[in-house]
Parts: sequence; C-alpha cells; structure tokens
Amino acid sequence: MTDKFSRNLSMLTDFYEITMSNGYFNKNMKDVIGVFDVFFRKVPDDGGFAVMCGLQQIIDYISELNFSKEDIDYLKKRGFSDDFLNYLSNFKFSCDVWAIPEGTPVFPNEPIITVKGPIIQSQLIETLILLAFNHQTLIATKANRIVRAAQGRPVMEFGARRAQGFDAAVYGARAAVIGGCASTSCLLAAQKFGLNPSGTMAHSWIQTFDDEYEAFSIYAKQYPDSCVLLVDTYNVLKSGIPNAIKVFDNVLKPLGKRPVGIRIDSGDITYLSKKARKMLDAAGYADCHIIASNSLDEHIISDMLLQGARVDSFGVGERLITSSSAPVLGGVYKLSAIIDDDGAVSPRIKLSENVAKITTPGFKSVWRLFDRMSGKAIADVITLFDEEIDDSKPYEIFDPEYTWKRKTVTDFIARRLTKPVFEKGNLVYHEYSVAEIKRYCEKQIDLLWDEVLRFENPHNYYVDLSQPLWDLKHDLIQECSKRKGE
Amino acid sequence: MTDKFSRNLSMLTDFYEITMSNGYFNKNMKDVIGVFDVFFRKVPDDGGFAVMCGLQQIIDYISELNFSKEDIDYLKKRGFSDDFLNYLSNFKFSCDVWAIPEGTPVFPNEPIITVKGPIIQSQLIETLILLAFNHQTLIATKANRIVRAAQGRPVMEFGARRAQGFDAAVYGARAAVIGGCASTSCLLAAQKFGLNPSGTMAHSWIQTFDDEYEAFSIYAKQYPDSCVLLVDTYNVLKSGIPNAIKVFDNVLKPLGKRPVGIRIDSGDITYLSKKARKMLDAAGYADCHIIASNSLDEHIISDMLLQGARVDSFGVGERLITSSSAPVLGGVYKLSAIIDDDGAVSPRIKLSENVAKITTPGFKSVWRLFDRMSGKAIADVITLFDEEIDDSKPYEIFDPEYTWKRKTVTDFIARRLTKPVFEKGNLVYHEYSVAEIKRYCEKQIDLLWDEVLRFENPHNYYVDLSQPLWDLKHDLIQECSKRKGE
Repeated sequence: MTDKFSRNLSMLTDFYEITMSNGYFNKNMKDVIGVFDVFFRKVPDDGGFAVMCGLQQIIDYISELNFSKEDIDYLKKRGFSDDFLNYLSNFKFSCDVWAIPEGTPVFPNEPIITVKGPIIQSQLIETLILLAFNHQTLIATKANRIVRAAQGRPVMEFGARRAQGFDAAVYGARAAVIGGCASTSCLLAAQKFGLNPSGTMAHSWIQTFDDEYEAFSIYAKQYPDSCVLLVDTYNVLKSGIPNAIKVFDNVLKPLGKRPVGIRIDSGDITYLSKKARKMLDAAGYADCHIIASNSLDEHIISDMLLQGARVDSFGVGERLITSSSAPVLGGVYKLSAIIDDDGAVSPRIKLSENVAKITTPGFKSVWRLFDRMSGKAIADVITLFDEEIDDSKPYEIFDPEYTWKRKTVTDFIARRLTKPVFEKGNLVYHEYSVAEIKRYCEKQIDLLWDEVLRFENPHNYYVDLSQPLWDLKHDLIQECSKRKGE
Repeated sequence: MTDKFSRNLSMLTDFYEITMSNGYFNKNMKDVIGVFDVFFRKVPDDGGFAVMCGLQQIIDYISELNFSKEDIDYLKKRGFSDDFLNYLSNFKFSCDVWAIPEGTPVFPNEPIITVKGPIIQSQLIETLILLAFNHQTLIATKANRIVRAAQGRPVMEFGARRAQGFDAAVYGARAAVIGGCASTSCLLAAQKFGLNPSGTMAHSWIQTFDDEYEAFSIYAKQYPDSCVLLVDTYNVLKSGIPNAIKVFDNVLKPLGKRPVGIRIDSGDITYLSKKARKMLDAAGYADCHIIASNSLDEHIISDMLLQGARVDSFGVGERLITSSSAPVLGGVYKLSAIIDDDGAVSPRIKLSENVAKITTPGFKSVWRLFDRMSGKAIADVITLFDEEIDDSKPYEIFDPEYTWKRKTVTDFIARRLTKPVFEKGNLVYHEYSVAEIKRYCEKQIDLLWDEVLRFENPHNYYVDLSQPLWDLKHDLIQECSKRKGE
C-alpha cells in the first residue's frame, strides 16, 4: 500500500551494504545465490513470545526498490564505478522471500523471514528488513502485553508525542493495534490504516476557559454523542467529577444523551476511580465509563486491577510507543547458505564462543505443531526447506541442546509457518488489512498455553530442529572447529 | 529543507488537537491568542543537561502545514462541520514561534519553544512539535554522552537496523551527529544532511568466501584507500589479525597503500584490542586504527578506556539510536497564557499536588548568564518576555523554591536564548547545516562547567525565575488555591 506518507526507502540502508554489493559486483559474484535468515535471540521484557509485525512495510520497500538519478549521482561522488552504478540504476529485484505472517506469535532463534537470491540483492536489503521488523515486532509485542494486562478492557494507543520519530508514531500505532489496541490517538495512522482515532481534550482546553464547568459544558454541547470529560485539571473529586455530573445533567440530559466517559490523567488513579465510580453511580451515570491514562504499562495496569481500580479503559502512551522497559528487539540477518550454479546448497555457519550465538546453517523453513484435541501449539520445528512433517504419523521432537530430552508427538497438526512473499522478485503475497491481522493475531495467541503467556517466568516454548537439520548443524560445527584447530 | 524523504505531516497529530480546534472554531474562539511553552522536567540518564534538537523538522512541518482534499474528506466522514473543514482547507499559519537554537545545552523547566497565536493553531501543532523535539533532543543528548565518554576518539553512529522506524534511523543519525558523532552508517541520512557515511563489511562478506584471507584480500584490492577489515568472524587473534596483516603485506604494500583499520565486533574487546595493537605494531602497522563495536554505550566505553583498551574509534548502534537506557524524553506543551483582543496577558497555571509539576505561567523568555572572565555559563533565568537583563549592573539570582538561596552575579554577559522562528506565520529563522549545528553544539557545551558535564551526580545547573516572574507565579498559585478552597 503506497500513499502520500510512503516514500522510496532504497537509500535507507547501511553504507556497508553498498560497499559489499559493489564488491560482489566487481568480483563478478553478483549472481552467487545467498540465503539469509532473520531471527532474534531474546523476547523483550523476558516475555514468552513476540508478535511478528512489519512485513507489509518490508513488502512496500522491496516493491519500490530503485535508485534515482540523484542517488546514483551521490554514489558516483563516493567513488563507485560506472558499471556498478549502471547495475543499480537498472536494479530489478529477483529474490525469493518467505516470511511468517504478521500477527503470528514468534519465538527466539527461528527464521522468521528468509531471503534467497543473488547475493548482491539479498545482502542489500538487510538494513531495511531488520529496521521494519525490529521496530514493529517490538511494539506489537509490547502492546499485546499491555492489552493482556487490561483483561478485556480496551487499550487506546496515546503515544505519538513521545515516539522516536514520525514513522514510530504512525507504524508504531499500526503495530499497537495489531498487538491488540482498540484505537490510536494518531490521526494519520487512523487515516492510513483504517483504525479508530480517539481523542477528546487536553488540560489546555479546560484552562482556556474561565472555569471547568464552562469548559465541560461547551464541549458537551458540541460533542453530545461522544462526550468524554478530562476531570483532573484542578481536583478530580472536589471539582472535576461534580462539574462533569452537572454538565451531564444540564447539557446532555435535556438532549436525551448519555455521557461516554470521564478521563483521569494524574494522581492515585486506583483510589480516584473507586471514588469516581461511586459518585457517578449515585448520580445515575452507572453507564459512564472511567478512562485512565498517565505513564501506564502492563505492570501498573495489572496492579491497578488487582487493587480493584474501577477503570473501563486505558490510554497508554510513552511506555507502549517506545517499549520503554525494553526498547530494542535485536533481530539479526544472517547468511545461512550459498547455493551453486548447479543448485548445490553450501550451508554457512557463524561460530561463537557463546554457544547460543552459533547460527543454524542451511536453507530452512519453520513448522508449528498443534495438538489436535485442544488446538494448542505444542512446539515449533525448524526443518530443511524441502522437508515435510507428516502429521499422520508420530513425530519425535527433541531439545537441540540437551538432545536426550525427547518427546514423541501424536495426534497433531503440522503447519508450515513461513509463506512465500516474493517468487523470483514477483510479489505473491496478499495484503491484509490491519483489522484482519489484529483478528488473526488474537486467534493465534489464543492457541498458546497460559504458561507461555504469563509475564513472570513464562514457559520456554519449544523451538526444535528436525533431525536432518540438527545433523547438518552438528557436522558443520565439527568441521569448522577442526578447520580452526589446524 | 524539503526533499524526497520529507512528507507533509499535517495529519500527524493527536486526534484531540482536531477535536479541540473544532471546538474553538465553533465557539467562535479561534482567534483567542494562546501562549504555549515546550519544556521537559528531567534530563534522561540523570544527566546534567540535554542537547536541543529537532527544530528544523518542526520548521519544515509548520512551513508545509496544509490539509489536502483527501484529509478534509476523511475528517468530513468523522462528522466535522463544513465551516470548520473549510477553515482547515484554507489553513494559514499565523503564529509567532520562538525557540532555543539546535545544539544548545538546555535544562529542565525552561521554555525551549514558545508558540503564541490563535489558539486553534497554537493548539493544533502541539503533537508534532513534541514528537520532533522529544525524539531528536533525546538522541542528541545520548550521542553527546557517548561522544564525551570516548574522550576525543571518533564515534560512528551504526544504529539504523535497530531504530524505532525509518525516521528514527534518519533523523536519529542527524541528532547523533549534532550531538557529536563523526559519521553515520545510514546512507540516506548522509545523503540528506551531508554527513560522512561509514561502512565496510559484515560477517556475511567473510562467510561468502571460502576463507577469511580470500575475503580480506578481495576487499583490500577493491578498497585499497579505505581498507578496514572485520577480524572477528572466526577468531580475532588466531585468524583475523594474522590474515589482516598478511593482506596488508601482500595486497596493500605492493600498491604503496596503508591500511585504515581493523574492526572487532565481539568478545572481550578491551583484551583483544591490546593484543591486536601489539600484533599490528610488531608487523609495522602502528598507524592501523582499531575500531570497536558491539552494544556499546557511554558506560562501557568509559570502562574500556579506564582499563586501557587500545581503541581508536567506536561504532555505536542500538544503545545510541534508541537511547535504550532512557528511551523517552518527556517534553510537554503547556498553556501559559491567554491574551485578550486588547493585548492584556492573562497568565494560566496548572496546579498539581506534586509541587515540581506546577507550571510557570506567563508569556516568557529565557536568558543565559555567562561569566565574563571564564566565559562559562553561570545560570539560566526565565523572565517575562518583555523583561531585559541588564548585564552592566549586578543581578541577583535566587532559587525559585528555596528563595533564601540568593547570589548576586557581577561581571557577566546576559544573552537571550530564545530566538524568533516565525513572526505572524512568516519564517524568519535561518536554516543551519548539520555541520554548523554540530560545531555550535560543541562550543556551547564547552561553556558548561565540568560539574554539569559529569555522568554521575552532575551539578544541578541553576534555572531561576526573575523576580517579576516569580511574583507572578506566586500570586497566581495563591489565587488559584484560594479559588479551589471556595
């Protein structure tokens, strides 16, 4: 989906992608086929899973990948050869790309996006793929935590002013809604993605008028069908709520309208909400919602609800839109294989002193196994690309590190998680609306066991390797270690 | 500066700005003059100051503020009146805006940007002003901490892939360079702002070839004038450095070229850098720089240097581009006055249980006092807009909270920090290049005492109120408290 907010992002790349592409080009290696995987190693906030997000923006970027004359001129000044620049001028994307659909719960170390194609191209798109994936997956994951903490109460995304840049406000709102938010304050995101915009008044509205009652009254007259009043400018219980009730009585009632809500943006919201609930109920406004905002996150919301806060919905800003408690998703893009002209796959591995940092080699795919009775997800299995998991027969899974931990799965359904997105450079993926992705996400998360969902010490969901892949990795580690020892 | 990466951001606003603007319009209040201040309450990372940044993007936004037919149609569907939408269609910005220039060290509670104009407009631009200011000031501030930790060694911004969205990569790189970084890996930021792009190779380059020596050799042949080799793909000391030296000897020497550097991206960099230094020196490459990267920040860099790491420059990624240890700057936009048709200023205050959250009312300006002998900054003083500080006479400053803490300043220079940016909607501010702002920033930070610069428990730089402003605030607090008590 392109529109006036979209831009050509071809130059939004780390300079080394160009340096390397030029290197491959000059060495006549541009058509060597490289296979790269995107994966991450750690779920933010020590959570049990992340929510895949950002694929549509990656698709938009790749679909429009081309270098303008201005770009070429700029690169020429940096000393790149005419032949290479001529290649870039006529750049035509021809890779295959697979990805796990947006909204799917994803886990550490599994290949979420796989790119296979001429290395000059598959290398070039690294930066932007990671940028879009890391950002939106981070925010969708955080939003989902906050939404789950709210236990069914709507969460409104309110973070635009504290986002890290313009796109973080807009695509962050997109990711937040995919993760489960009911609406966003960001008008442009609402317009661009068909989301519900939400927003009523700031404290400045109240302060502009001579008194709070007048400010409320003027607002209620103009918005009788969507009247939400901000009650904490002066004093919630002594001034805000009494004035709100007066306005509901004097302005809305004669029009035959009911108030939508009041919003509390400061102070001890748990305490205030209980008092406010009683005052509203006593005045005949039991249907008037109480909305809370002010530096909320999943922990504060959980705690408020535990203490009996009478809050019907939450507005969440900076801690959602920046995922402030864990503001980085460390997704990486690693070479996993080189493929010869005759199709022979030569797997590549990156060894590390840190065993967890050793990459899984080969051209791969990911499957998810679901229990046929409960429908719940049992484990993910990373396989070689051409493997099939036959769910008509028992299947043995095992821990890739402690290989004696084994389990035979029966009565299950196996689904390949990674879907084709580009085939030889042609887009073959369907574009889903944000609303569709949001619904899909909710359903997929429902398929996880509660143990994976909890905030504290969640169960480590199994991400295993198939036996053939494990053997390949094991052999390659041996071989590389031997070579290093020589 | 507008270019193909810029966009019209008029709809990038919280929905409530539109709700309120419509409210003012319908109530025939659109031309009431409102005065708003941007300020923040806390320096990120408990630092001594922040680095003002993001003004140019605010100017770009305001300069292009207009609503397209598509925007108007969208708002029409949300129920806004034709009269209001007609006003928006013909929107013409007519406010006055003052701001402290980019690159200036700024402190909590001082008005950094002031907007004065028809409230329908001055309210409308809140969200985007805060968004651009909060983001870029946050990153410039973080970058400056990291640059100071590097004690004169160049710091390269490497964070694009971990940034929170596309703009965070591009404008984050801009802010990072303003804060003192020497270069950026982000090609688009380099192109757009005239920065130095930096980047050589990823581990995948090494892995693509059959062995490390071949990978280095091919690279060195292609980039003999800018040869930096990544030496940690297999083993830094056993493989990376020896292969690099061989390539310097076999490829560069015959061409009469010297290597630029080697880069270490993992492991115990302090230890490895000392060993690498010895090996390079022994081989005759004492001029070959050692570059470190891998999850660095100001604390790790300080610690590495304290332990004698032989690193000549640093590549800093995710912890800079997201300011991960403090990922939010909480800048706010508060109404401080309403001005009548006849020019009478009616100051506005927001009371709070939390004394630190009480706003400073009135139409204001900020001055910085410098010691005439040393040139160092002594204090900032917030004044009423029309006040002048006469630096030919002694001037008494005092703590606005503990008013008995007083000090008479003599032999000083007083400078008004806030500069006119828009006058009645017309841009009157000069656009500075990023290089100019970077130099200005460095000079201004040199004018701060070391006590303000340190990372741990920095001195609280004085931000005082002038006597007339203090009196105004004090009277207004009394008056409002009395009114609340009635």
